[in-house]
Amino acid sequence: MQNFADRLDLSIQEKKSCLVVGLDPVLDRLPPEVLCEVGVPNAGEPGWTARAASATGIFLRGVIDAVAPHAVAVKPNAGFFERFGAVGWDCLRQVSEYAAKQGLLVICDAKRGDIGNTAAAYAEGLLGDTPDTLGPVTDAVTLNPYLGEDSLRPFIDRCSAGKGLFLLVRTSNPSGADLQELDVGGEPLYLKVARLVEKWGAGSRGERGLNPVGVVVGATAPEQAAAVRKELPEAFFLVPGYGAQGGGAEELAPFFIEGGRGVVVNSSRSVLYAFDGKEGDWREAVGEAASSAREDLETVRTQSG
Amino acid sequence: MQNFADRLDLSIQEKKSCLVVGLDPVLDRLPPEVLCEVGVPNAGEPGWTARAASATGIFLRGVIDAVAPHAVAVKPNAGFFERFGAVGWDCLRQVSEYAAKQGLLVICDAKRGDIGNTAAAYAEGLLGDTPDTLGPVTDAVTLNPYLGEDSLRPFIDRCSAGKGLFLLVRTSNPSGADLQELDVGGEPLYLKVARLVEKWGAGSRGERGLNPVGVVVGATAPEQAAAVRKELPEAFFLVPGYGAQGGGAEELAPFFIEGGRGVVVNSSRSVLYAFDGKEGDWREAVGEAASSAREDLETVRTQSG
Repeated sequence: MQNFADRLDLSIQEKKSCLVVGLDPVLDRLPPEVLCEVGVPNAGEPGWTARAASATGIFLRGVIDAVAPHAVAVKPNAGFFERFGAVGWDCLRQVSEYAAKQGLLVICDAKRGDIGNTAAAYAEGLLGDTPDTLGPVTDAVTLNPYLGEDSLRPFIDRCSAGKGLFLLVRTSNPSGADLQELDVGGEPLYLKVARLVEKWGAGSRGERGLNPVGVVVGATAPEQAAAVRKELPEAFFLVPGYGAQGGGAEELAPFFIEGGRGVVVNSSRSVLYAFDGKEGDWREAVGEAASSAREDLETVRTQSG
Repeated sequence: MQNFADRLDLSIQEKKSCLVVGLDPVLDRLPPEVLCEVGVPNAGEPGWTARAASATGIFLRGVIDAVAPHAVAVKPNAGFFERFGAVGWDCLRQVSEYAAKQGLLVICDAKRGDIGNTAAAYAEGLLGDTPDTLGPVTDAVTLNPYLGEDSLRPFIDRCSAGKGLFLLVRTSNPSGADLQELDVGGEPLYLKVARLVEKWGAGSRGERGLNPVGVVVGATAPEQAAAVRKELPEAFFLVPGYGAQGGGAEELAPFFIEGGRGVVVNSSRSVLYAFDGKEGDWREAVGEAASSAREDLETVRTQSG
């Protein structure tokens, strides 16, 4: 398969969009008609997980249909599916497959990080080619770098097979600073991590000059983004925190490289639940929110870098 | 439910064992008779995941029967089950439930770490009370601290309901040093993390003086263990790296607190695959390896702290 950075870059150019829609399904925020259709019992009652996963699948297929023209990728977050046990894991796979069929790239937001043969097992399950696992339908995963290079190597090795990674560098949550901002010899830890990512990604660059060993850098910290970009001039950035988490599009400029390239921006709740408090078809509201987010981001992207 | 630290401490006293058996099942190392019984096709062929998960379940139930008299807990590693997709997740749940029924505590080695409502979703799925999820059959989980306090809070809050945590501080893999040994104001990052864990765990202590907000500190680094123990005088330590990963029992002494308390030691491959190259029933070889590891550890434990 083509290098993930090439695939993502081409898709951004073709679709004129750097929007990623985060799939963070929370059952009690689903449209009432979806919940009614499935008949979900109260949490904890027999059959709840199966019904909850079923309703989640119906909802997310509707979301995918609505956002497919406006987004380059979806980012299902594994935690919201694991929460339903084995049936949730099945739902995650089905939703990912459906998104892939609609021409969206799939970034599995798993934030995994483990050592030795466990890292290899995770890499096989998430990015491998075994039927009935996520591997064949997932293009990229998010990873946690705290365990160092050997924990990431089985994933990095799969970049040569067309897969991509986004390593957590500076996250957008308030406590992200607890470790990430600690002073390491005059600079914050996250910058040290960025420099390690640059080293780990050497040799993975695609034909279009971008690197599939990418990073996650929160949109709530634009001055930090500029510093990370300086260390990683070719890496793809996955930027969460736009929309419901508080970051505005104008703050995204420092993330982009020349020609408005090298960045995808995630929006989850402000797209997923755009129908909240509105009349009419919920899918339309979701599609409109995605379209509007895409336009908002395009203004910045086309003027950046 | 009783505080996890109390439950674990009592179980160690009663069983006279601090051994945890890590469940890291690798298909091609399973006993041939188990593979034959199930008839596992080649990887990638239709039905492989279901057959692989089935063989894994049979193997691990046999392991659990064999080690139950000698160990206080099992530590299934989520990566080896995720590798089989949804059926693997189901297998993880069934194996955990089986271990709980045999009187073993279950530590799910998931190494999760995420933010906001995702952290809450993971905590509900792994430690909550929803039927058909891991929550009801899992006593504790491992977590990655890179995202800071708010990513851990939904888990810490469950300690009051009898659950336990082990936060990664210093891991036993060669690249663990990449981040964990970085110099932060004259001391390594992992010591800063240990101090944060002490702060985060305040208020969770059990009646027996130990804290269920524990840590993972690798056995390959005994002098580091002493430094971490100084920062965390009451936390439970989960020590991997004993056995196949290279650490010896005599190096474990600095981990223990007074009375040989506050430590559990994990052994995975040297117990799981003890039948390798031996004649006779594979379950017997596994049981003997667990018994021998227990004795080895008891010598150190009863002379420590």
